[in-house]
Amino acid sequence: MKALTINCTLKASPATSNTEALATVVADEIQQAGVETDLVRAVDHNILPGVSNDEGEGDGWPAVLDRVRAAQILIIATPTWLGQPSSVAKRVLERMDALISETDDEGVPFAYGRVAGVVVTGNEDGAHHVISEISGSLIDIGYTIPGQAWTYWNRGPGPGDDYLSNEAGHDWSHETGKTAARNLLTAARSLEGAWSG
Amino acid sequence: MKALTINCTLKASPATSNTEALATVVADEIQQAGVETDLVRAVDHNILPGVSNDEGEGDGWPAVLDRVRAAQILIIATPTWLGQPSSVAKRVLERMDALISETDDEGVPFAYGRVAGVVVTGNEDGAHHVISEISGSLIDIGYTIPGQAWTYWNRGPGPGDDYLSNEAGHDWSHETGKTAARNLLTAARSLEGAWSG
Amino acid sequence: MKALTINCTLKASPATSNTEALATVVADEIQQAGVETDLVRAVDHNILPGVSNDEGEGDGWPAVLDRVRAAQILIIATPTWLGQPSSVAKRVLERMDALISETDDEGVPFAYGRVAGVVVTGNEDGAHHVISEISGSLIDIGYTIPGQAWTYWNRGPGPGDDYLSNEAGHDWSHETGKTAARNLLTAARSLEGAWSG
Amino acid sequence: MKALTINCTLKASPATSNTEALATVVADEIQQAGVETDLVRAVDHNILPGVSNDEGEGDGWPAVLDRVRAAQILIIATPTWLGQPSSVAKRVLERMDALISETDDEGVPFAYGRVAGVVVTGNEDGAHHVISEISGSLIDIGYTIPGQAWTYWNRGPGPGDDYLSNEAGHDWSHETGKTAARNLLTAARSLEGAWSG
Repeated sequence: MKALTINCTLKASPATSNTEALATVVADEIQQAGVETDLVRAVDHNILPGVSNDEGEGDGWPAVLDRVRAAQILIIATPTWLGQPSSVAKRVLERMDALISETDDEGVPFAYGRVAGVVVTGNEDGAHHVISEISGSLIDIGYTIPGQAWTYWNRGPGPGDDYLSNEAGHDWSHETGKTAARNLLTAARSLEGAWSG
Repeated sequence: MKALTINCTLKASPATSNTEALATVVADEIQQAGVETDLVRAVDHNILPGVSNDEGEGDGWPAVLDRVRAAQILIIATPTWLGQPSSVAKRVLERMDALISETDDEGVPFAYGRVAGVVVTGNEDGAHHVISEISGSLIDIGYTIPGQAWTYWNRGPGPGDDYLSNEAGHDWSHETGKTAARNLLTAARSLEGAWSG
Repeated sequence: MKALTINCTLKASPATSNTEALATVVADEIQQAGVETDLVRAVDHNILPGVSNDEGEGDGWPAVLDRVRAAQILIIATPTWLGQPSSVAKRVLERMDALISETDDEGVPFAYGRVAGVVVTGNEDGAHHVISEISGSLIDIGYTIPGQAWTYWNRGPGPGDDYLSNEAGHDWSHETGKTAARNLLTAARSLEGAWSG
Repeated sequence: MKALTINCTLKASPATSNTEALATVVADEIQQAGVETDLVRAVDHNILPGVSNDEGEGDGWPAVLDRVRAAQILIIATPTWLGQPSSVAKRVLERMDALISETDDEGVPFAYGRVAGVVVTGNEDGAHHVISEISGSLIDIGYTIPGQAWTYWNRGPGPGDDYLSNEAGHDWSHETGKTAARNLLTAARSLEGAWSG
């Protein structure tokens, strides 16, 4: 079993990513349970607009998609802009749209039995909505979303600090993130192969 | 194992409910798999505003809550108004909010291992958003949402027919609803007790 | 010109309402500009489910609707539950749905030239989404939403204090609320009668 | 006065865009009222991820931003993917985020007095939510959203035809789009300069 985190920050490597910092808390908990973890910063790849698995020359998505395919557990981690998921998160989900109609040899859709969670950071407000938007998309694609398989950090009201610049609430965000990790693991182990033969 | 459908139509019994008609397609498929099904029309009960399990004299929620507690599978069925879930669906979810902090003797939150799906009807547009809003709420409470555990019927663009007054697209809505039923069953069976001991 | 605030708290009078407290900052600014203000706590009225202007015996909506009709400026104030508007806010908007097709003698839809804003409180996260949901509904009905015609108070991450129990961020919420009041006034004065004759 | 439509299709020129086809109905109505119209297909420009007005070498946004600045009326036109706005629409709105804190010599925020509308196409469902998401973002930035300043075309239930491949409902979508155009014009004329000195 493998877990993949896709960090949907707007900032290319090696810039520091608040979202990656919080997502790492979740991934570390998964890794400590003996599950291999992988991490992609989506904006480092040239993910072209489109809804097919390969949009042609220069498209960075096919390589990312291979890592999506390898993962039983998927975590979409995103900053919040205007109270909504980042454009990079939207791009990733759009490219995953092609998986809706993909099935294995037994006719089981690609994402059945796979589980997904969400990590959100922001400098203001919006996490619950971001979680709903991303969860709704992933359910559509066929992923199962376990209960309380998310965590977030933000601090309203009004624009203010980022996660890495303010320690307030880190305990809650980390504890909630570790619970999310354990819920993803429990669901992934119980559901693996559940739709097959 | 039991399945409960909560019909969140605005219309009290015995008025015909388009939402109930489509939800019944899902429930029938669950019943044919040997799982007992229950159905509540929320508006027939006097569910008071609030976020506790019992809002006092005249509150119809405690009786509904008993049926929620008995169900391993929950289906929220709602019409679409202004592109959003009905106020009755929102009321039901608000009252379920108290379950977030409820645990069993082992400390496992109430909804862990329980699964939920969504059925939506409308005379125009809005089903995907309604599914995201309701799924987001239920994930928050601790329910697991299996992939593709929903169906809907509407027919844009612009206001027009209801589900029961237009046969177009019924095949898709019913087939999708039966798939939802099977996905709920598969997930419920795999996850029952997964968080215990 | 008149302004009406509809407080969509779940708590009946005379219980203290965090939402009303913040909404009053906006209303006071409007009043100081010489515009008469009105305030309704929706849950104190028996607003029946439905989408007509009068749902019959015992319906408290017709009396509230009279006050909606009298107001050039409407402010929907709501708490946040599960990251979304309250069921009471949804009920109010559903009942306003009937106004979509109502026109004056010149054929101008009821809400054209009227403006609306949003006030949100919560003990966690969700204000931006609540503002989008309510604004989307009101735009559908025909109200104009001026830029930055909202304010909110919440304080993530995780569940915590209410507006009235924590002074942090009040300056921002109040200043933003006063700006919202002025933006509503500017738009209301400019748009009054703009669709007539 | 000028109007700008930003087409947020995923398809680069010269591919046919359903979204552009419907958006043109709105733009034509605006043009017939004597207002100059402009059209940008965002994906043809290399709009880099970020939230500043210029993300450096190769960034296509500054040229688009010049056209945004020239327009009193803005129309965001987008396809629907997974029931949500396209990643291209999200990218455009993220880049507009920098305008929140931009003011003129009198201290009036950039978007005050400017108006915006939304055009949505899709092959299934989701328009109302797309309108709410985009309107919510634009209100945040400071644009005024007039009542009923949007139109859409989709046709549920389930995935199916595109706008250009199915004539059903075109009358409604076009009539609604022309009303949107007139509402944008009325509001733009009434609000121009309303926040100045």
